[in-house]
Amino acid sequence: MRILGIDPGIATVGFGVVDSGGSRLNLVSCGVITTPAQTSLSSRLDRIYDDVTELICTFSPDAVACEELFFNTNITTGISVAHGRGVILLACHKMGIPVFEYTPLQVKQAVVGNGRAEKRQFIYMVKCLLNMKSAPKPDDAADALAIAICHARSSTSLITKNGGDFPCSTI
Amino acid sequence: MRILGIDPGIATVGFGVVDSGGSRLNLVSCGVITTPAQTSLSSRLDRIYDDVTELICTFSPDAVACEELFFNTNITTGISVAHGRGVILLACHKMGIPVFEYTPLQVKQAVVGNGRAEKRQFIYMVKCLLNMKSAPKPDDAADALAIAICHARSSTSLITKNGGDFPCSTI
Repeated sequence: MRILGIDPGIATVGFGVVDSGGSRLNLVSCGVITTPAQTSLSSRLDRIYDDVTELICTFSPDAVACEELFFNTNITTGISVAHGRGVILLACHKMGIPVFEYTPLQVKQAVVGNGRAEKRQFIYMVKCLLNMKSAPKPDDAADALAIAICHARSSTSLITKNGGDFPCSTI
Repeated sequence: MRILGIDPGIATVGFGVVDSGGSRLNLVSCGVITTPAQTSLSSRLDRIYDDVTELICTFSPDAVACEELFFNTNITTGISVAHGRGVILLACHKMGIPVFEYTPLQVKQAVVGNGRAEKRQFIYMVKCLLNMKSAPKPDDAADALAIAICHARSSTSLITKNGGDFPCSTI
């Protein structure tokens, strides 16, 4: 199964593509989509939508795993990110790819085994799990790989429990 | 100038189409886009995107006026609405229509002359300004008409000041 992990944003959207077979994980690609700060919100959303569509065309994932949004501090940033997440979900839906959601806590638990793990430890584990020579950069790409790993592990666990089905509900 | 006013949402998106020439305002159409609660967020975003695109094709507006988002209370609802607003802005951008943003305060001031006007008074003024026989329903459609009226009045004021240009900045 090929998974496209996405860390949503408006200035920077992280992406990570991982192949998963049983307990094996292989890195395919990772990086970021960036949008220029001086352009309108509409233009930035357009860039994100087109680039996510292109990622799906290029890598043909079986599933997209996307982080849920939680905002305790900066609600203005939260609203911008939610605009971006809206067009990401739309792009996946238009391309017929199911989307699965995970909270930051679930992602950390799946990757490090501890929902309160520090960033440094978290990135180190992404590097180890994917047999990378150096830590993935920038952080948004590492986050996206972690979300893909989280989905791979959740799916594996669910397959074991349910005899081969993929009972994860789409959002 | 034909203006499509949009009151963003995820369950219900209000729309109102108004023709504006000088101080004259004419109602063209109004209504709501609704999305079923039992469907996925991705499906609801898809419906909103397609329906806004269809509205633009049907009415050929020169501009879209869309309400800005402010959330002081329910952040979960706010995040959902921002997802919806993201795909609305994307649809307008893909169709090449400029989008103008107004705060709820600006809309009330433009329609009633009082930023703290009550809902009843606000809807009554929309009915009067557009020479409607009865008050527009539901409230989301009335809100969308008010946003269109706000843009018509803001544009008129700016034309007077600037000799015919439309200096409103897109978002």
